[in-house]
Amino acid sequence: MLVAKESELRERYGVHWRLTGVATRRTGWLADPGGLHPLALLNGHWPAPPADAPRNVREWLERARADLLFEATSLNAQHGQPAIDHLRAALEHGAHAISANKGPIVHAYGELTALARARGKRFLHESTVMDGVPIFSLFSAGLPAADLRGISGVLNSTTNVVLTEIEKGRTLEEAVKHAQALGVAETDPSADLDGWDAAVKLAALVIVLMGVPLRLEHIRRTGIRELSVEKIRAARAAGMRYKLVCRAERRAGAEAPVHAIVEPELLPLSDPLANLEGTSSAIRFDLDVFSLSLVEHNPGIEATAYGLLADFLRAVHAENPAGR
Amino acid sequence: MLVAKESELRERYGVHWRLTGVATRRTGWLADPGGLHPLALLNGHWPAPPADAPRNVREWLERARADLLFEATSLNAQHGQPAIDHLRAALEHGAHAISANKGPIVHAYGELTALARARGKRFLHESTVMDGVPIFSLFSAGLPAADLRGISGVLNSTTNVVLTEIEKGRTLEEAVKHAQALGVAETDPSADLDGWDAAVKLAALVIVLMGVPLRLEHIRRTGIRELSVEKIRAARAAGMRYKLVCRAERRAGAEAPVHAIVEPELLPLSDPLANLEGTSSAIRFDLDVFSLSLVEHNPGIEATAYGLLADFLRAVHAENPAGR
Repeated sequence: MLVAKESELRERYGVHWRLTGVATRRTGWLADPGGLHPLALLNGHWPAPPADAPRNVREWLERARADLLFEATSLNAQHGQPAIDHLRAALEHGAHAISANKGPIVHAYGELTALARARGKRFLHESTVMDGVPIFSLFSAGLPAADLRGISGVLNSTTNVVLTEIEKGRTLEEAVKHAQALGVAETDPSADLDGWDAAVKLAALVIVLMGVPLRLEHIRRTGIRELSVEKIRAARAAGMRYKLVCRAERRAGAEAPVHAIVEPELLPLSDPLANLEGTSSAIRFDLDVFSLSLVEHNPGIEATAYGLLADFLRAVHAENPAGR
Repeated sequence: MLVAKESELRERYGVHWRLTGVATRRTGWLADPGGLHPLALLNGHWPAPPADAPRNVREWLERARADLLFEATSLNAQHGQPAIDHLRAALEHGAHAISANKGPIVHAYGELTALARARGKRFLHESTVMDGVPIFSLFSAGLPAADLRGISGVLNSTTNVVLTEIEKGRTLEEAVKHAQALGVAETDPSADLDGWDAAVKLAALVIVLMGVPLRLEHIRRTGIRELSVEKIRAARAAGMRYKLVCRAERRAGAEAPVHAIVEPELLPLSDPLANLEGTSSAIRFDLDVFSLSLVEHNPGIEATAYGLLADFLRAVHAENPAGR
């Protein structure tokens, strides 16, 4: 995405970039302040690690002279690590921290936003919910002084694909394999099937958009494993569909300020959520002034990459808006 | 809306306001730099005009010492007046210009944005399309460096209400009266029924979001009058619905850079646009990186008021972001 948009970033936004570090579990901490070649890396041409290669995230950020970090490790719903450590290290190093990982929002949102503010840097996370669809930017720039009272949506692609495939006649196991082949399900699909992915997304939305520090254990969570194949197909035959739905609602005067649930719901086909196919997702925001839904139609992996790119522009362009 | 949100504006945004002028066709140019009482005015208590009352928009802006103008006259699709004159006068006076009227975008967007930039003020118009739903803010803040290739949507509430009422058994005339009673149709409904309102909205989106100065006469426009009551009901009985759909598409290498149409389309119920009821509207944006739809669910008049309020905050809060 950086390469594809390189000339537009330069000509329209006055933004130049250089890739000075890449780290993965397999290849370790690769850094070169002179610049790495993204297309060569994508084609598998990795330079051999030098004898004095960085040994941890802090050494790596130093060596790379990083101005900005893209964090894209996979979700750990229980504690949000190692993503939180990476983002904290980036901000302490003096770099902007861009996360595609929603664990840090649920487990360290207050700390990371405060740290970013103290360092004059940005902690941005647009691609954590609905890929690159600008949910968080929509609220901060587009909906000032509006009161968010409720959120509902279908936010997990894997269960969406799996339920559709079961409707078509596949078993749960075959349907999961199909979702993995599409690249939407992880090798271990339990985070999706048991509703963890959906719950973490819902918590991230409540924490950032409602300003309520909701904890995962306060979300009533039911996955889709308990639904039998027969039940799913019978619903479809009767003109209804099961979807894994997330709901959060402000409750004035209640024990908890927000009531949050993730569970399979049986929806009539006239419900906009029922018509979601493939990797599509949808969310509805009930505000005091109106209700608004956003639907993302069958995104691919470039939608997530775009979310990271847009955060990059928001972070660095604000430093130098004259470039616009 | 200003009164309802007054304490939030003050406490959360550090924004104080005073209403120093109101002008309507009926009451003329009312100004008082000391402040007018919005609730008294809403209840019909208008002060008698003094002998030296302002005689035109410029005298009125001077007398009111206006920092910001809300322009909410009704649409003139052919030339965009008198709204353009009001907005130009406000910017030349040194005030921000906020418009709920889409005529000025179609007929004077280049002039008004250039004038605003030259004066260091804002020309904002969020409530012109889909009321307060942040369409224009979404693109400027949320979708940097994304390429908008196509727009499609149902953007006119009156035709939506009228088609639904005809499906239910009403005549065109009864259906229009129902839409007028709901407050969505004007006394003269032809701008809606003939597709002018939809065409002006589509042109505004193309001009601002695609950067192409599309003219109304280049939009192929067909209203809903040509649809017979029988045709509309037969479609509904067959599980389909007519909707007045707007479409715009970039055409590389074509005569015109954008191909734009407003016309009734027969849609299957599985199409998200087919399920819109009442005053709801929907729009789909096809970008290079993903496709995204926004749906506004049955808004009332406060949705438009909120769009004006949000523009007000965007204009004045940017002057003093420390207040946030």
